[in-house]
Amino acid sequence: MRSYKPEELFDEHGRLLPELADLAPKGDRRMGANPHANGGRLLRELNVPDYRTYAVNVPSPTAVDAGNVHVLGRFLRDVIKLNTDPRNFRIFGPDETVSNRLEDVFKVTNRQWEAETVPNDEFLMPSGGVMEVLSEHQCEGWLEGYLLTGRHGLFNSYEAFIRIVDSMFTQHAKWLKMSAELPWRQKIASLNYLLTSHVWRQDHNGFTHQDPGFIDHVINKKAAMVRVYLPPDANCLLSVMDHCLRSLNYINVVVCGKHEAPQLLGMDAAADHCAKGIGVWEWAGTDEGVEPDVVMACCGDVPTLETLAAVSIMREHLPDLKVRVVNVVDLMRLEPDTEHPHGLSDAAYDALFTKDKHVIFAFHGYPWVIHRLTYRRANRNMHVRGYKEEGTITTAFDMTVLNDMDRFHLVMDTIDRLPQTGTKGIELKRLLGEKLAQHRLYIDEHGIDMPEIRDWRWPLLPQR
Amino acid sequence: MRSYKPEELFDEHGRLLPELADLAPKGDRRMGANPHANGGRLLRELNVPDYRTYAVNVPSPTAVDAGNVHVLGRFLRDVIKLNTDPRNFRIFGPDETVSNRLEDVFKVTNRQWEAETVPNDEFLMPSGGVMEVLSEHQCEGWLEGYLLTGRHGLFNSYEAFIRIVDSMFTQHAKWLKMSAELPWRQKIASLNYLLTSHVWRQDHNGFTHQDPGFIDHVINKKAAMVRVYLPPDANCLLSVMDHCLRSLNYINVVVCGKHEAPQLLGMDAAADHCAKGIGVWEWAGTDEGVEPDVVMACCGDVPTLETLAAVSIMREHLPDLKVRVVNVVDLMRLEPDTEHPHGLSDAAYDALFTKDKHVIFAFHGYPWVIHRLTYRRANRNMHVRGYKEEGTITTAFDMTVLNDMDRFHLVMDTIDRLPQTGTKGIELKRLLGEKLAQHRLYIDEHGIDMPEIRDWRWPLLPQR
Repeated sequence: MRSYKPEELFDEHGRLLPELADLAPKGDRRMGANPHANGGRLLRELNVPDYRTYAVNVPSPTAVDAGNVHVLGRFLRDVIKLNTDPRNFRIFGPDETVSNRLEDVFKVTNRQWEAETVPNDEFLMPSGGVMEVLSEHQCEGWLEGYLLTGRHGLFNSYEAFIRIVDSMFTQHAKWLKMSAELPWRQKIASLNYLLTSHVWRQDHNGFTHQDPGFIDHVINKKAAMVRVYLPPDANCLLSVMDHCLRSLNYINVVVCGKHEAPQLLGMDAAADHCAKGIGVWEWAGTDEGVEPDVVMACCGDVPTLETLAAVSIMREHLPDLKVRVVNVVDLMRLEPDTEHPHGLSDAAYDALFTKDKHVIFAFHGYPWVIHRLTYRRANRNMHVRGYKEEGTITTAFDMTVLNDMDRFHLVMDTIDRLPQTGTKGIELKRLLGEKLAQHRLYIDEHGIDMPEIRDWRWPLLPQR
Repeated sequence: MRSYKPEELFDEHGRLLPELADLAPKGDRRMGANPHANGGRLLRELNVPDYRTYAVNVPSPTAVDAGNVHVLGRFLRDVIKLNTDPRNFRIFGPDETVSNRLEDVFKVTNRQWEAETVPNDEFLMPSGGVMEVLSEHQCEGWLEGYLLTGRHGLFNSYEAFIRIVDSMFTQHAKWLKMSAELPWRQKIASLNYLLTSHVWRQDHNGFTHQDPGFIDHVINKKAAMVRVYLPPDANCLLSVMDHCLRSLNYINVVVCGKHEAPQLLGMDAAADHCAKGIGVWEWAGTDEGVEPDVVMACCGDVPTLETLAAVSIMREHLPDLKVRVVNVVDLMRLEPDTEHPHGLSDAAYDALFTKDKHVIFAFHGYPWVIHRLTYRRANRNMHVRGYKEEGTITTAFDMTVLNDMDRFHLVMDTIDRLPQTGTKGIELKRLLGEKLAQHRLYIDEHGIDMPEIRDWRWPLLPQR
């Protein structure tokens, strides 16, 4: 250590010599105060159009179909347009902006591209608002750097392959946690993920493209930083994304499918539902304000449709059953309020799920996520269906069948838990077992789902 | 489709023309039968020395210190030596074989290196048994290819950075699941991970190097394939690794620290404990065959030491308390036997954890893992301490304090749960609160842990 010549640096009391201390930069030249290293100082509020104007008109549940992410694309197109002047919003993704159905953004911008082009190249320009390269690592790195220097962005990815950046995500989450402890650090825009092309719709890619576990990874990080949303339809996706794009210092994970699907909520209902993050869908249930016999809960677009289809079967065949339908958009509402800022109090949770009635929960991801979030709650009768690593190249509905999360299994689960369904229940179970056998034969022969599956729509009341 | 000229390929009944069908390869020339594509056909059993001969002599619990992974290094050295002729075992890792304390392997082999060398290069040769490059991706890819072509191997990694290959792991797990469904596919050697330099001992690296979540990721995959072991000391690590290296078609994750630490079990006791995978440590507890007042459970080397230290405090200050100590080596024992091949029946689980006594569980990883594995069990009084994303560059003991998993917090948790500890308990809590304050002051001044922490050893009975 003597080789550092401390006698030239410190006085006899061990204090740094004043002329050396004076060499350190001052004011904005200090490393932490330099706006290039404290990007929040450069942050300008994102201009966001009114998301309600992009709404799908939904006169009643399932009355119209739309591609959720496609609808979002129009909103994002105008986010890009409205921020052309500060030019501080970009979309990042591994070569999948079109495949993920966000193609409308190319009406106002292009892919950033500085090399030569050939005649059949599409959507390239040297100042594009979309950053694409088939490397999730590079997309994540680009976006993190973009956010850390005071801009805004969105990463869109196949759900399974966002796992490629698990480790990079961890470092950003840790950085946010430590930064929040430093009063001089200004907030930066949230790190927003849109995970689409998700586990339930890998019709042509199959088992290799199925991994909904990024949710598990994210919720292990500090609760103050992480948010997970699973909007069930396009209007909910608009509402959720509007919120995420305006937020600061979070990591927002939004999971939503890109395929055409029946739309559920009108814009006002969607906005209200997303603001609450979780709620009873009174229009779907039959409990009418009294304690239900069973709670059918759902989280995620595909599980929500299967739950609604299951409830429609129960309403027809078991009309005396009081069924409550609970939909979850904001996953962290399930955790206790002592654990997550979005968590429900025990009283609020019990008001939705009851203290002791059976809950049949259809979940987008690995079923244990729900158990991990709810193990402290009073109600121990939580039965979760979700992805359990069963899948192949098959029909959309068959994916739910392979994982026991389809409408028929959900009804059969309910009957198993509710002996009061009696002989009617036993008869219905037999019928649904036959349906599952028919399904197997039909898809083997035709390669597509049965008409009654493809054409299923909510048969009952118009939306209140 | 006409451009494929089907009339040249099929007869009038739509059958492939026999002369074309004959073109397909036969026997071993078929793609799936070719041994290069069905590596299990080339697999030769690994020669494994008797792991017991590498045992640390442990006359009584904590009587001697040793580095767990360093002890394992001698065993692995001889695995390499014994398989020199078939040359079918290699160790893979990101430049950390020495840092991870496996340096003894370099007594019999070197790093694979084919480029030029300079005089101060160490342990390089063109036919080395160790494959090193500072890229977890490349290590994982090398090892997977090595296994798929019928050889054996081990990946050693910093625990946090194995997350870099989350997505590659997923693909291998899915491959194993699908292969097991194909009768013609021969079994291959297991994919073995040794995760060391773990979350609790990042004394010089801090928060960025702390992520125990690979466990969470792994246990979401098919139960038939995945195994997770957390041996508490060197002899247990030897026993576990012997089992993993001999196994086929699994993914084995072994988590164990590399630092010098008090050794707990003699070789016979360790072998017996690891064969069971979970068990009561009667020598540590005070329940003596009766229903305990509290179960102190632990899984992982650092949590186990903290639990033993906590029990030693309780034995001194609350001598009337009946304490049971349960240690978990094989994590999947916690799951029901209906869910995982290693799972305990409810009766066996209840016999260890009781149906209703409080369980204070100190766990190596994220605490929710334990809740996710045990939510189906009768006993709802499970209180888990583990890593909750609190950490920095600090002392080893302080890491446990920051996450409320230290001996003092474990005792305080117990007192909070057991009102029968009465005024003695209240007084002890006050005392331990003072200890925690002393700890803070001491490490701030000295930069190392208090002598009573560093020098703590199990004070009571010799091992039975």
